[in-house]
Amino acid sequence: MNFLNTEYAVETDTDLGLVEDVLDWFFTDAKLRAVSVHPAYLSLWEAIERSAASGKRFRPRLLLLAYRQLGGMDSAAAARLGAAYELLHNAFLIHDDVIDRDVMRHGVPNVSGHYSNKARRAGASAAAAQHAGMASGLLAGDLVLAGAYRLHGSVETCPKVREELNGILDYAVFSTIGGELLDVEFARAAEMPSPEEIRTVARHKTSVYSFEAPLQAGAVLAGATASVAATLAAFGRDAGIAYQIADDVLGVFGQEQHTGKTNWGDLREGKRTAMLSYAATKPQWKQISELIGSDRMTAAEAQWVRALLRDCGAQEHAVQLASEHAQAALKQLGDEVPAGLGDSLESLLSSVLAGLHSL
Amino acid sequence: MNFLNTEYAVETDTDLGLVEDVLDWFFTDAKLRAVSVHPAYLSLWEAIERSAASGKRFRPRLLLLAYRQLGGMDSAAAARLGAAYELLHNAFLIHDDVIDRDVMRHGVPNVSGHYSNKARRAGASAAAAQHAGMASGLLAGDLVLAGAYRLHGSVETCPKVREELNGILDYAVFSTIGGELLDVEFARAAEMPSPEEIRTVARHKTSVYSFEAPLQAGAVLAGATASVAATLAAFGRDAGIAYQIADDVLGVFGQEQHTGKTNWGDLREGKRTAMLSYAATKPQWKQISELIGSDRMTAAEAQWVRALLRDCGAQEHAVQLASEHAQAALKQLGDEVPAGLGDSLESLLSSVLAGLHSL
Repeated sequence: MNFLNTEYAVETDTDLGLVEDVLDWFFTDAKLRAVSVHPAYLSLWEAIERSAASGKRFRPRLLLLAYRQLGGMDSAAAARLGAAYELLHNAFLIHDDVIDRDVMRHGVPNVSGHYSNKARRAGASAAAAQHAGMASGLLAGDLVLAGAYRLHGSVETCPKVREELNGILDYAVFSTIGGELLDVEFARAAEMPSPEEIRTVARHKTSVYSFEAPLQAGAVLAGATASVAATLAAFGRDAGIAYQIADDVLGVFGQEQHTGKTNWGDLREGKRTAMLSYAATKPQWKQISELIGSDRMTAAEAQWVRALLRDCGAQEHAVQLASEHAQAALKQLGDEVPAGLGDSLESLLSSVLAGLHSL
Repeated sequence: MNFLNTEYAVETDTDLGLVEDVLDWFFTDAKLRAVSVHPAYLSLWEAIERSAASGKRFRPRLLLLAYRQLGGMDSAAAARLGAAYELLHNAFLIHDDVIDRDVMRHGVPNVSGHYSNKARRAGASAAAAQHAGMASGLLAGDLVLAGAYRLHGSVETCPKVREELNGILDYAVFSTIGGELLDVEFARAAEMPSPEEIRTVARHKTSVYSFEAPLQAGAVLAGATASVAATLAAFGRDAGIAYQIADDVLGVFGQEQHTGKTNWGDLREGKRTAMLSYAATKPQWKQISELIGSDRMTAAEAQWVRALLRDCGAQEHAVQLASEHAQAALKQLGDEVPAGLGDSLESLLSSVLAGLHSL
């Protein structure tokens, strides 16, 4: 997410330090409590802390941006709320990796990878090691999900705001897991999901917890009107979909040094994206579908699939779609939010799309 | 848990009806929201609801017992809090089954079983079907865990009680997952865990969320003193350990028609129990250890292991240990709690041990 390094982030640097402080406190407290149970429990918490260390804190940033620009003054409460969303994000990542049987993230072993490697070193079979990784990843994700609720519940505020914040978090969890379920089920289905279904997944799996909820929560904590919070949610909805489409395009066409991940992983996996859903309606699909979704796909084959996706207009279609959602997001803002917040959100959106223009 | 049908439960029958109402509302609301995401999401929620339908509501019963006997009058709040602990229990069951790769519970397919059967019928390979079961079980458990927090957070009370309730729930989750981690790690280790380690697992995995937390939460919601709540927690700690040891003995020596589960499953699995930990120090262990922990163990071999466990004194030791913990639990109560509550808890403990006397 290269749009995190733009100017809008500068204003909240001090607040972000407070988010780190909350997370540090959270993990220190957890490790102290874990060691009183058993040293093995401390090891699990250390693995969790490592996995959470490398995040870009996108959701806290968004939350703090809305909070500050809407006049919020209680840095401690906002940092705590931001940290809760960061933990929520980490819980989802850990469980996503369990579902995808991924053992690496950002080039290093994730929680499951750490435990499966450890089991292997202790002489376990590949299957037993995989099981050890699955079990510890599952438990780790549960702990972090519970931790998110714990931090969220400890934000000091009045009953009315508390109830609204609870509703936002609840909807975020409900929605994201629904999106993840659809993602899993669509990946397993023989037929390609419709564009509408792809959008449903993007909205539920990405927009809600990464954009809508942090913006809304920041607004509600700042005491903004229901109308402003709803406007930010509407913005977040389209912005998240735009981001997801852009991210999927870059996952296939982007430069690895910019995206930080391989540009054939999604093709090998046959990940259901807006681009592929469009391509599935074109004559080139026969060739594309024969190549993607295989662990043995070569670099040359990936290159050929890229050419076919360009050729049938799928790449252009997806870029256009991302751009339309970004426009729709901006349109939602209208005059409802302060100019400074609107400008920051607009520059964030430009960053989302920036990578696409150089393709 | 046959001790659920004893007299102590009678007093809270109306309250229990309210717990069912809360759960009904919870699932109806979730299903309505799920269908607005996608029909596939509704199916997941239906599978979750089925899996939660057959519970004996032990934790809500305990919570309501403490609440009523300590003078609590807000039925709605207590029922909601009880339902939260019931959901927490269900979340743990669903994720335990994922970790144990169990596809049945109470003789019917669990969430994972439902999804792996469905995948099989759709033509998936055994491995793909298992993966489908794992993924849906993982997501289902996340939803129910989040649901527990949601209900818990919606109990109306004052800030002080709210903070205490949050602390109790947080400790319950933290402790239980720690216990589950140890259970998984000990099962994988070559050497038998020490009696102390077995007790640590029982305390963290069973006592805390099934006994201590519901009793404490009921007391705190009723406005009891910190001292009464602490006394109930201390009771729950030993009562839970007594229950776990008794349950493990009955899992090997009990009559299947009484326990509702096979009496060789634990032996086949090689489950680490107080009984086996004791047996591991005896000459009979060589023979025992060669037979247990194998999927291919026959009924005759199981019968032979039982004879060896009796012979080396492991059965008697475990029965004695359960009895000692039950005594210790009762001793904790002292004069601190009202007589009616003390009597109910004592009869509960007798029921826990009742099955052991007939062995």
